Amino acid sequence: MYPQPINELVSELAKLPGIGHRTAQRLAFHILRSEDADAAALANAIRDVKEKVGLCSVCFNLAEGELCEVCADTRRDRALICVVEQPADVIPVERTHEYRGLYHVLGGALSPIDGIDPEDLKIAELVRRIDTAEEPVSEVVLATNPTTTGEATAHHVAELLRGKVTITRLASGLPVGADLEHADEVTLGRAFAGRSAVG
Amino acid sequence: MYPQPINELVSELAKLPGIGHRTAQRLAFHILRSEDADAAALANAIRDVKEKVGLCSVCFNLAEGELCEVCADTRRDRALICVVEQPADVIPVERTHEYRGLYHVLGGALSPIDGIDPEDLKIAELVRRIDTAEEPVSEVVLATNPTTTGEATAHHVAELLRGKVTITRLASGLPVGADLEHADEVTLGRAFAGRSAVG
Repeated sequence: MYPQPINELVSELAKLPGIGHRTAQRLAFHILRSEDADAAALANAIRDVKEKVGLCSVCFNLAEGELCEVCADTRRDRALICVVEQPADVIPVERTHEYRGLYHVLGGALSPIDGIDPEDLKIAELVRRIDTAEEPVSEVVLATNPTTTGEATAHHVAELLRGKVTITRLASGLPVGADLEHADEVTLGRAFAGRSAVG
Repeated sequence: MYPQPINELVSELAKLPGIGHRTAQRLAFHILRSEDADAAALANAIRDVKEKVGLCSVCFNLAEGELCEVCADTRRDRALICVVEQPADVIPVERTHEYRGLYHVLGGALSPIDGIDPEDLKIAELVRRIDTAEEPVSEVVLATNPTTTGEATAHHVAELLRGKVTITRLASGLPVGADLEHADEVTLGRAFAGRSAVG
């Protein structure tokens, strides 16, 4: 119905997550009507992100170049490694401004049902990194998600690192601002198990 | 926080209509993780749509080349011209399979408040097209939207074409499947004004 280049753009846009056919059509028409420079900027940004962004050779966080910003920052505490599932998990930890160590991005969580086994994640790389670190690593904070797969992954990594370093896990409990009435029983159970002395 | 090419892609995606910052981030990560070929296909489709799609030199519908598909189709009835506001309006008319004539896309509707005057639309081109047509045009169907600006545009075009051709306007009334109880009074008024004899 439309000229072929429009149909092709619609079908490419509709492959993006959460973009249906009608939204893709709306976006395609917007791009068609937009300034040449704006459309070129979008096309170039897509190409650049694929060409220029890779994984940090040390921690497998996203990096433009050999090292990610965290690994390249000499002010970070190299004795501390925070293990996360995905590059996107680094951002919320950084936002807390509570953590000044390094990261290790596993690239996912163990999930045998989805065919994700230890060798699909950067687990061996973590062990090697700790064994061969110039400045010794004293603590590994396991910050995988508090989900079944995240817990299994933390458990597996902890087993491999036992005896090498101090291993800690993020606290699990009631989120700030939550109320008991609506808390699910698993979270509340964790909050009880992790209770601390007051005063 | 993220490598610069990711931030740039997020900011370009967030310029698209209906795409907020979080959605742009999700899309950017999807593109980052996608196959190189898929990302390249999207970037190329954006470039192609800007480079290859223009306006038909006769009717100003979207066209890949000199003429749009409708104008290039020799089986269409050249005595009939349906006037619409936007290229996107051609599609629903085509879908009815009721219309076998040509189109004329004005490129918008008159709206002095938005600074859209007759010379901003392809109105003079329509008059010239009818005056100089090889096969004479017998009827012009005004299919601008049944809105204030669409009606004003239809009225203006009708004035200019008076005496040259038969001028018709799409019927306005209750949509199929609607009920009287929930019909707005303007639509219902139109339905009364346009009532036809039964049997």
